Amino acid sequence: MSSHLALIILELVGIFVFAISGALTAIQKGFDAIGILILAEVTATGGGVIRDLIIGDTPPAAFRQVEYLLVPLAAAVVAFFAHPVMSRIHFTVLLFDAAGLGLFCVTGTLKALDFGLGPVQSAALGVTTGVGGGLLRDVIARETPALVQVDTDLYAIPAMIGAAAVTVAARLDAPMSVAAPAAAVFVFAFRVTAMVRHWTAPRAWTRRQATVK
Amino acid sequence: MSSHLALIILELVGIFVFAISGALTAIQKGFDAIGILILAEVTATGGGVIRDLIIGDTPPAAFRQVEYLLVPLAAAVVAFFAHPVMSRIHFTVLLFDAAGLGLFCVTGTLKALDFGLGPVQSAALGVTTGVGGGLLRDVIARETPALVQVDTDLYAIPAMIGAAAVTVAARLDAPMSVAAPAAAVFVFAFRVTAMVRHWTAPRAWTRRQATVK
Amino acid sequence: MSSHLALIILELVGIFVFAISGALTAIQKGFDAIGILILAEVTATGGGVIRDLIIGDTPPAAFRQVEYLLVPLAAAVVAFFAHPVMSRIHFTVLLFDAAGLGLFCVTGTLKALDFGLGPVQSAALGVTTGVGGGLLRDVIARETPALVQVDTDLYAIPAMIGAAAVTVAARLDAPMSVAAPAAAVFVFAFRVTAMVRHWTAPRAWTRRQATVK
Repeated sequence: MSSHLALIILELVGIFVFAISGALTAIQKGFDAIGILILAEVTATGGGVIRDLIIGDTPPAAFRQVEYLLVPLAAAVVAFFAHPVMSRIHFTVLLFDAAGLGLFCVTGTLKALDFGLGPVQSAALGVTTGVGGGLLRDVIARETPALVQVDTDLYAIPAMIGAAAVTVAARLDAPMSVAAPAAAVFVFAFRVTAMVRHWTAPRAWTRRQATVK
Repeated sequence: MSSHLALIILELVGIFVFAISGALTAIQKGFDAIGILILAEVTATGGGVIRDLIIGDTPPAAFRQVEYLLVPLAAAVVAFFAHPVMSRIHFTVLLFDAAGLGLFCVTGTLKALDFGLGPVQSAALGVTTGVGGGLLRDVIARETPALVQVDTDLYAIPAMIGAAAVTVAARLDAPMSVAAPAAAVFVFAFRVTAMVRHWTAPRAWTRRQATVK
Repeated sequence: MSSHLALIILELVGIFVFAISGALTAIQKGFDAIGILILAEVTATGGGVIRDLIIGDTPPAAFRQVEYLLVPLAAAVVAFFAHPVMSRIHFTVLLFDAAGLGLFCVTGTLKALDFGLGPVQSAALGVTTGVGGGLLRDVIARETPALVQVDTDLYAIPAMIGAAAVTVAARLDAPMSVAAPAAAVFVFAFRVTAMVRHWTAPRAWTRRQATVK
């Protein structure tokens, strides 16, 4: 199997699991079948669409290759019928989501670098690719975005470090066929460890002194 | 009257009624005059702006032809003064909204096909054009989007069928001057029937077995 | 100091204060450090990014010049540690925010005119540049947007008048080196006066007759 094919398959797996997380959110909120489909599509493709609009690569990849729309449709159908099982395998879904996060923040950063953006901007867009779909999911579902909540185990921080590592590797002319997978694996491992150990980011500084928020 | 002129008039009618629905939402939420204007503009132009950004046709039509911004302004002024009457003619407004939905999902699909997008992607963009403005309206007004709610009479499904029909007609080289209006009328009739009969989309599959959500 | 350098400095000041308002909102909502950073970035750059996507100037300025991303980062760090002081100097922050509003709606309008948009559309985009970041901030923080609320002191109206004044000056070929700063100062002064005197926009027309909303 060529590495190019491997990348495409991994990306479609990432889209599938992000779509599952969107569909399960919709089901938890009691949305109808259309709501499940829409949340699956938006969660899976939202981050990449925002990235492509910003770098000016239109139409976005999600509207060029039909798989990007069909895979979330398949995920919505699976979740529609299998959601009671999936809630039980919640941790498995989160594992795949962590894999999607690692992959998307790395490929997003690489695409932005390819389009000539600077390292800081490319890393920012890589993170946006990884977390953008989930942010849109939470806004549409009227949930406080998991991304900003104090009790969410670290999510954006692994993505930031992974995206930054990719830009450093690019600057150092490191072989990307090694550096990119390594960064994706690092993001995945860091995110999973944060979940298991419930690592969270701090609130604003004076929290410790304040008795009541 | 030429068919081109007829299309422009129909599109401006669609923009007007979408703007009315945005303005009435703002009034129900107790927003001020600025809120009424902003919600009218966003609801009327949001779907088309998203479509044009995605296909890369910038600036979007709403920012090229000034009528696209002035008609929602007029609708906001009308709603500002006439909203007590309009709430009484709620069903009439919904009829016009259904007309706007039918028209927008068809013209949106046609524009995406024109820009070379595939049939699935074009249909998806057509639906986005039809429902996008209402989605932004509900997000800004902090309402659970009507689009995803289980007690909303079918809204996206007529649009999906209509958009799909347009792509099939295009693939079969059917005369679009017949197929496009037919698809728009179908969406309108389907949506109105769904309203009258209160057809809704199902929740996720196990709802029937579950006693308590 | 050249006027060009002065403009850049003023724009970065505007970005800084918008970022501060985003960071303080995140702190008030109890978000974590990542939420503070994200809300700072989105509030500061959101309006300009929307403007640049609509006029088709991609990548947006915020992703070309790295200062546009680093200044909100600095603002987030400052707010993270200094927010107890900043809440006490709330009015000072609002003063800077008013300066940012004046500046952004003027530069946004000028950029849209530069890209060939008509006067109404350019003024609309100028206002969008000024208020867009705050709107995204409130949507992500799950607050009713200050922009549409009836008890918000006039915010969009000064921006609308300032943006309209710029388009009139452009149409009359007035010297923009005078007209643009004058418009920005006008927006600032109008907004500050509205804050001090608590001027608000009216609700929909029948409010006076209705006893209960």
